[in-house]
Amino acid sequence: MIYDLIIVGSGPAGLAAAIYAQRAKLSTLVLEKEYMSGGQVVNTYEVDNYPGLPEIGGFELGMKFREHAEKLGASFLNIEVRHIGLEEEGRIKVIYTDREEYRARALILAMGAKHRMLGLPGEKRLTGMGVSYCATCDGAFFKGRATAVVGGGDVAVEDALFLARGCSKVYLIHRRDELRAAAVLQEQLKKCENVEFLWDTEVAGIEGDDHLECLKLKNKKTGEERMLDVDGLFIAVGTVPNTTSITNLLQLDENGYIVAGEDGTTNVPGIFAAGDVRTKQLRQIVTAVSDGANAVTSVQAYLNTL
Amino acid sequence: MIYDLIIVGSGPAGLAAAIYAQRAKLSTLVLEKEYMSGGQVVNTYEVDNYPGLPEIGGFELGMKFREHAEKLGASFLNIEVRHIGLEEEGRIKVIYTDREEYRARALILAMGAKHRMLGLPGEKRLTGMGVSYCATCDGAFFKGRATAVVGGGDVAVEDALFLARGCSKVYLIHRRDELRAAAVLQEQLKKCENVEFLWDTEVAGIEGDDHLECLKLKNKKTGEERMLDVDGLFIAVGTVPNTTSITNLLQLDENGYIVAGEDGTTNVPGIFAAGDVRTKQLRQIVTAVSDGANAVTSVQAYLNTL
Repeated sequence: MIYDLIIVGSGPAGLAAAIYAQRAKLSTLVLEKEYMSGGQVVNTYEVDNYPGLPEIGGFELGMKFREHAEKLGASFLNIEVRHIGLEEEGRIKVIYTDREEYRARALILAMGAKHRMLGLPGEKRLTGMGVSYCATCDGAFFKGRATAVVGGGDVAVEDALFLARGCSKVYLIHRRDELRAAAVLQEQLKKCENVEFLWDTEVAGIEGDDHLECLKLKNKKTGEERMLDVDGLFIAVGTVPNTTSITNLLQLDENGYIVAGEDGTTNVPGIFAAGDVRTKQLRQIVTAVSDGANAVTSVQAYLNTL
Repeated sequence: MIYDLIIVGSGPAGLAAAIYAQRAKLSTLVLEKEYMSGGQVVNTYEVDNYPGLPEIGGFELGMKFREHAEKLGASFLNIEVRHIGLEEEGRIKVIYTDREEYRARALILAMGAKHRMLGLPGEKRLTGMGVSYCATCDGAFFKGRATAVVGGGDVAVEDALFLARGCSKVYLIHRRDELRAAAVLQEQLKKCENVEFLWDTEVAGIEGDDHLECLKLKNKKTGEERMLDVDGLFIAVGTVPNTTSITNLLQLDENGYIVAGEDGTTNVPGIFAAGDVRTKQLRQIVTAVSDGANAVTSVQAYLNTL
């Protein structure tokens, strides 16, 4: 069978694309690594900037998107994409997986992005043993204990706010002397008495045997090093796109994001990118769902040319 | 007082911008022609493509957006904008109204779009006397009677579906031999026994004294003319942007839309466009709210340069 459209990824962008594709009556298949694998949204504690649904839990919002797509009849398959190929002078796109191959006239790539790592020796070894990338997921394990958050954006501040409610002490470690995060978040965080800001500071070492014991910190201005005892380290230094399986076909920018504008058009005719995985100004739920709608519109226009 | 940001319009784009601006702690004022004036959404019967809120009434969705913005403390003012000026080498933007003047460092223009008219002699005279641009608003007046819808897009088919539930007969008049509307909508409409499609046909005349009596139709292929008795005519031939008050400053495209990309940037530094009013591929609620978020991000970056 050759589908009209295969969507890779089931985060907000992929699910919005599924909703629009079902309404457009395209024969569509959504591929996801595992059930609800797609989307950082499901690991977000609370979302307050998706218009119309204030103060909603991230998992609940992710489920609402999915239920909406399922209600319209969208088909999902749990499978990992290996790479992508072209047949018939590019008119057919082939998805290679660890099992079957799948074919479609058009693809929407919506694999999203994942957490960026610090790249320190102890980091991988101690992940799950004190080192985490998701305060919402793991913060509760550190109730009454000391934790640190690394980063300066919205997510870092949101993580610190979340941790401050339960931890005895929260250090916010940032390599610059000011935060990028939204002013409203910064103000909230500055009100927390158990939060201490460590400016111009980077994490130079993550230490411990079978669990995290302390961090080696380095002041970027003075060069001074010190040790900081913490039980938990939450790393919130941004995201990197999930593009490894498709670099063979697509033009990527210097950070690995798929080069694509608002309409999702990439360098390959019939392959479109939507959501966090593409080059864009603002990576948010609301811009991801918009991308899904736009990409389906582009798919319809493309299918009409075949 | 000089605001950080004035938002003109209170449809989905303006309200999403208000939500993001409140979270960014920008001093913000939203100007709207009248309470809930902004947004074609409030006149939409049902919306099923805003991810996460399936099958919601348009008015209800519009209210949810507004309540979300109000919950975050957004300020609204009912006033009609006359035109826009610049002061201090463009660093201050002035909004002229029929009353006060308002000043801000940045503007987001989100005035939306309105219904396109056919431009026929009887059209204006008989508007409200049988001629309408909103089936959701006026359809109920024609229960058990014969109506016609002109157009071939989603809105025309949605209007015909809505009318078919109550009217004795609904004619769908379209100048081409196929519809642009989503396949799912077309299928639904073709199932309605009281709907008749009039292909390759345009409305050449709207006739009646104090109320609509009949339409003069012309077949575009054969040139043949005929009269069609109907009690109601619903005109759904697209939208035109609400840009009249600001053409003095901004670059517009040939259809009058403000030339602006995904980030909302226009030809005037510090003035951004969001939603239906700007040049874009897809005018939908979900792309409008995305625009609002993007425009506020651009405003923040612009304010940092002042």
